[in-house]
Amino acid sequence: MSPQQTFVHSSGAPMYMETSSAPTNIATIKYWGKADAKWNTPINDSVSVTLNQDDLKAVTTVAASSSFEKDRLWLNGEEEEGAAANKRFRACIDGVRALATAKKDADGKVLVTKEGWSRMKIHVSSYNTFPTAAGLASSAAGYAALVAALTLLFGAKEEFPGQLTTIARQGSGSACRSLDGGFVAWRKGGEKADWSDSLAEQVANEKHWPEIRAVIMVVSDAKKDTSSTAGMSTSVETSLLLKHRAETVVSKRMETIEKAFLAKDFETFGQLTMADSNQFHATCMDTYPPIFYMNDISNSIIRIIHAYNKWAGKIRAAYTFDAGPNAVLFTLDEYAVEVGALMLHYYPEFGENYVNNPDFGMKIKAFDLDDGLLEATAKTGREPKSGEVKMMYYTSSGPGPQRLTDTILNLDTTTGLNTYMYKK
Amino acid sequence: MSPQQTFVHSSGAPMYMETSSAPTNIATIKYWGKADAKWNTPINDSVSVTLNQDDLKAVTTVAASSSFEKDRLWLNGEEEEGAAANKRFRACIDGVRALATAKKDADGKVLVTKEGWSRMKIHVSSYNTFPTAAGLASSAAGYAALVAALTLLFGAKEEFPGQLTTIARQGSGSACRSLDGGFVAWRKGGEKADWSDSLAEQVANEKHWPEIRAVIMVVSDAKKDTSSTAGMSTSVETSLLLKHRAETVVSKRMETIEKAFLAKDFETFGQLTMADSNQFHATCMDTYPPIFYMNDISNSIIRIIHAYNKWAGKIRAAYTFDAGPNAVLFTLDEYAVEVGALMLHYYPEFGENYVNNPDFGMKIKAFDLDDGLLEATAKTGREPKSGEVKMMYYTSSGPGPQRLTDTILNLDTTTGLNTYMYKK
Repeated sequence: MSPQQTFVHSSGAPMYMETSSAPTNIATIKYWGKADAKWNTPINDSVSVTLNQDDLKAVTTVAASSSFEKDRLWLNGEEEEGAAANKRFRACIDGVRALATAKKDADGKVLVTKEGWSRMKIHVSSYNTFPTAAGLASSAAGYAALVAALTLLFGAKEEFPGQLTTIARQGSGSACRSLDGGFVAWRKGGEKADWSDSLAEQVANEKHWPEIRAVIMVVSDAKKDTSSTAGMSTSVETSLLLKHRAETVVSKRMETIEKAFLAKDFETFGQLTMADSNQFHATCMDTYPPIFYMNDISNSIIRIIHAYNKWAGKIRAAYTFDAGPNAVLFTLDEYAVEVGALMLHYYPEFGENYVNNPDFGMKIKAFDLDDGLLEATAKTGREPKSGEVKMMYYTSSGPGPQRLTDTILNLDTTTGLNTYMYKK
Repeated sequence: MSPQQTFVHSSGAPMYMETSSAPTNIATIKYWGKADAKWNTPINDSVSVTLNQDDLKAVTTVAASSSFEKDRLWLNGEEEEGAAANKRFRACIDGVRALATAKKDADGKVLVTKEGWSRMKIHVSSYNTFPTAAGLASSAAGYAALVAALTLLFGAKEEFPGQLTTIARQGSGSACRSLDGGFVAWRKGGEKADWSDSLAEQVANEKHWPEIRAVIMVVSDAKKDTSSTAGMSTSVETSLLLKHRAETVVSKRMETIEKAFLAKDFETFGQLTMADSNQFHATCMDTYPPIFYMNDISNSIIRIIHAYNKWAGKIRAAYTFDAGPNAVLFTLDEYAVEVGALMLHYYPEFGENYVNNPDFGMKIKAFDLDDGLLEATAKTGREPKSGEVKMMYYTSSGPGPQRLTDTILNLDTTTGLNTYMYKK
């Protein structure tokens, strides 16, 4: 380990620090509904594409010192009062610390014993490079970065493969899928009483299908109406269709989509991705009272994508929507500029930072859309209109959490207090 | 029978005419998906409230004469070319004619033998008093009026109870439920090879629960994107949730809602009505490609109704949506003005014919909505806005088809040609 991680607190006590980034992930077979609220386990399997941290990530610094008075957490620069007692936050700190190992210096001298970690309080500062709670799985990236940073800090060792993902899952369910790159499945588990078999495993890494791209249409960055946790709970209680989906539909879809990903079969992958997004939103509508995450703008994107694929005679783009109105459009490298240009045509530029990637932005502005494609998609009834989509992100698939040693830390190296100031 | 029905065609041949009106109906447990396309039978039972013809109806005149050259049909004043070969139209004419009886004059002299009807061609003119194909079940009223008028014309006698509903069903599925008043169930049938057991039966007549009211919010009178027939076909092929709904969910709901209607239990009736509307639209969303009949305006009405009921501490209004964005709000006499006033508040007047019933219009304008109710419903995010709802219909439950003898006929009594001119 590199020397940056040990500092001296102004009180004179040692202070150990680590920083990790983690990616967000977008499920193509959706998680909706908890089997066990205490363990935060799902009623069905799910699988997701890990997005590239160059474009979207959470960055979390953790520090441990005997000079700290209590566990503290800063999110996007703002301290969360009472975080030390927060069940999810606690599960991550205590869970990773239970796997801690002794920390030694370069000469093998013990600096902190395994038990010694328990005598220190923890400071955490985390920020996202994308809008919080806008349906872009910010909590997944945040809890994955927390678990990854704590793992480095405590030198934690898993007792079985995937154990760290069971801890991240207790922070935020889908966080377990952000601890790895590429295509990652969350197996629902439930054979073991402590749900230690409800864990994530990589189906294929980010190098397996490097042509995968994602164009994200940020329809709204407002906080969502119904939180995922509350929504899931109501759905499990009231939707008969959700129960059927979890018990009967998902397991076959998991098998098919994992095979499709391994075979780089975009036709099957895309078709199932779209069908499963729709089924998830169908179960939300079947909830009583119903939950609406998509809106008319989301629906117009769906219609355009179906018209596009029909025009192309094959699936070139596949939409998926999480618990919010934003569309994530999966496509392949060869079609990405066309997909972006099509979206720019119907949801034209609104402000200069409309596209996160300037190079992609220039390419999609310059791209000449086929007349037949414009005619086919115009039949959906959508007319080009500014202001309804706030931003487009272009990204690819990427690896799991990264240790950051040469970045500015979010916590002060002398006081252990937050230094990161959130900028909108 | 009254003497109006016999006329003399300009050619000198007798011409027999009858006119019937029929109501529309609004399903509270929805029909979606055909079991047999040829017989037009459903994959699940359904049940509906028959609306009052004073407010919404189809009026159909039929004429038979040996001087007619072919079967002809006028809809809302426009002739439908090729109607004689239309499968649905044919099924109704031929189906009712197979049950014909001989026509006699007052002295018992036979004017037309049972077989004689087959030697005459039929002219039909039908109009609706509400927008066609706007999701207000216009085809149900139209085919019910056609079957009812033909029944009068041919003096048709059923061989078993409900036989005429099996004929109307072949015109338009839900038309079978418009042949009776009050609360009418359509039993899916399927035990008999000719589907003669797929028929409608009255659960309770319109006098059983006279306090039932409906406020209809016409969100759009545009023709819908996906026709019901095409939509159902795609849903049956692709939605796994629809299959589950039809096989497992609906039969229990039918039993519960029929009991609730008989017990005048609005709480259960309303809750199931809303849940089943949502489930129907959920199966549309689970269809591939997905079908969206509701829009953001529809969704805002749903949110307001849930907030209203929550504020009231009981169900005072229940929404239901057919294959279109229009909301039908069932309520009771005692809450109808409040429901109308609430809708008028959030979807304010737009033109002078906004409310079909002037008395109701005045009452809802004068009604003083509770401040707590306005506060509770404002939390849905809806702000009052004109122009999104084009019209409000206020109506009640009513009887089945009515013979019209003192009305102006839609067909000329000398030529048998259409006289009704459609006025928007």
